[in-house]
Amino acid sequence: MSQPQNTRIVLASRPQGPVKPDNFRIETVPVPAPGDGEVLLKILFLSLDPYMRGRMDDAVSYAAPVAVDGVMEGGTVAEVIESKHPGYKPGDIVLSHSGWQSYALSDGTGLRKLDPDAAPLSTAVGILGMPGFTAYAGLLTIGQPKPGETVVVAAASGPVGSTVGQIARIKGARAVGIAGGADKCAFVRDELGFDVAIDHRAPDFAEQLQQACPKGIDVYFENVGGAVWDAVFPLLNTFARVPVCGLIAQYDGLDLSGKDRLPALMRDILKKSLTVRGFIQREFIDQRPVFLETMSGWLHSGEVKYREDIVDGLTNAPEAFMGLLKGHNFGKLVIRVA
Amino acid sequence: MSQPQNTRIVLASRPQGPVKPDNFRIETVPVPAPGDGEVLLKILFLSLDPYMRGRMDDAVSYAAPVAVDGVMEGGTVAEVIESKHPGYKPGDIVLSHSGWQSYALSDGTGLRKLDPDAAPLSTAVGILGMPGFTAYAGLLTIGQPKPGETVVVAAASGPVGSTVGQIARIKGARAVGIAGGADKCAFVRDELGFDVAIDHRAPDFAEQLQQACPKGIDVYFENVGGAVWDAVFPLLNTFARVPVCGLIAQYDGLDLSGKDRLPALMRDILKKSLTVRGFIQREFIDQRPVFLETMSGWLHSGEVKYREDIVDGLTNAPEAFMGLLKGHNFGKLVIRVA
Repeated sequence: MSQPQNTRIVLASRPQGPVKPDNFRIETVPVPAPGDGEVLLKILFLSLDPYMRGRMDDAVSYAAPVAVDGVMEGGTVAEVIESKHPGYKPGDIVLSHSGWQSYALSDGTGLRKLDPDAAPLSTAVGILGMPGFTAYAGLLTIGQPKPGETVVVAAASGPVGSTVGQIARIKGARAVGIAGGADKCAFVRDELGFDVAIDHRAPDFAEQLQQACPKGIDVYFENVGGAVWDAVFPLLNTFARVPVCGLIAQYDGLDLSGKDRLPALMRDILKKSLTVRGFIQREFIDQRPVFLETMSGWLHSGEVKYREDIVDGLTNAPEAFMGLLKGHNFGKLVIRVA
Repeated sequence: MSQPQNTRIVLASRPQGPVKPDNFRIETVPVPAPGDGEVLLKILFLSLDPYMRGRMDDAVSYAAPVAVDGVMEGGTVAEVIESKHPGYKPGDIVLSHSGWQSYALSDGTGLRKLDPDAAPLSTAVGILGMPGFTAYAGLLTIGQPKPGETVVVAAASGPVGSTVGQIARIKGARAVGIAGGADKCAFVRDELGFDVAIDHRAPDFAEQLQQACPKGIDVYFENVGGAVWDAVFPLLNTFARVPVCGLIAQYDGLDLSGKDRLPALMRDILKKSLTVRGFIQREFIDQRPVFLETMSGWLHSGEVKYREDIVDGLTNAPEAFMGLLKGHNFGKLVIRVA
């Protein structure tokens, strides 16, 4: 039997504006052999997430950028197929951060064993993983929704937004979701149980949002930026909280034309005692055990639902990722690698 | 003896841009007589503060605007000269919010008795009053300076800024103050003990600030806005906190020309996990007893110093206030009314 090959997708060049296919390159290399203390992982699922766009740029951030010619990074669910590490044996299923490739070595750093019977494996990079935890920690720690308050979130059919709205409702708040298109809006309202869903493509989007928030907005969970912000901003109430976990609308570059909106933002931050707080879920890592237990409970009770958009084949990752940045996915985007 | 007259300064018209003398009108009316449950107050000191500029506009805020033809509002130290209120007797000294006038009635709401032997009476509207408490609560609750961190504050010779820097040093942080002119900078550095003082009028102000903050900025206490913000913004560290309690540079109107700075702010809020949080000291009112005790201790030990800029005569309040908005005062601006 010939040695299996490792397919990997590397960053061929940094994007200038929107991501293009030639920013990626598919390579095939021999599967490496594990050294002492290492395991060889076969990747089962690869998570595709908006934050990866930021890692393609060479800019100051909380995380180092992916190097040109380096493997694109990403969260993965993998099977141990060979082990020279005392803590792992072949057949173990783990959460890893192995990136866009079909095999990877690991010395165990950052691995977490998964129970394949507890939940579908792909949820470890979705509702029970980084996106679910981002929603949970950001909403509860920064957003702090109270009963009767109004919580607004965009990308509401996506893995973070859908979770934000459902947790808001569990906490007794009103959930207003913003999504792109009638199908996503119907899902957000009818399946996820948001109080209102609004299509951001509607010509009267801002008016619809205002009507959906007759008592203003107490929490705006910012994960998109762009035009949604402009509609949300005037509706923010005194003491409103704005957790900021993503700005997908401006990842392809900053549009600095138009009037300067900073003075008005600072004015309202002052006059309305607003809190605007960027975060990355990692800083709340101490809460993860409680999150896992709480969210597992909500999933079992049916209080929280999730939707996945699973694409087969690692080589489809670049196209799927470019679609994600345009909002083409419907639910948590995951690549089934093996 | 003829009945004394009440001199009061009312808002004659709302400012269009910078405040002008004709936005005020001085009136003389009979001193009112207290009804049952009321006290008649003779105003001793009137506090002049930048927030009053906001009350002159008819804009949504945490506080209602002063009505046109209404008495300008403001914190005051007053003596009870007639009382039909069981809790007060003539001779009592109280903190009140009686506005720009020489006499006022009160039903006791919001009054707080002062001990004239504990501290100079004017400090009740300064270091031991609203400005001191704004600095204390905003810096400690939102800014949360840690030993070795760098805290930057503008208007550093003023009542809020001077207190912010001194508390920062007490907490083991480095204090960098920004002030206008050599005299104020010398005071901030030599008298107040800031580590560095920088003149915002210097042509190389931004470079000086960068050199003064070799490890970046962890807390920027925002009480001015404008050009200082532009110099501070690129120096903010990951997890930096920005309490916002004033924007004096933009109170006369928003300059919306120039490039849009909002996308860059939101990008850095996200990438650096920044916290930008507007506040008014009132929301931390539960902390006031601890503040009064703590600050009194710091004053007695000499760990905190303060400077007052006392102007004699109520009718000089409009001119003094217009000077305050231009940075002409040097220390806490107080009008000695009687």
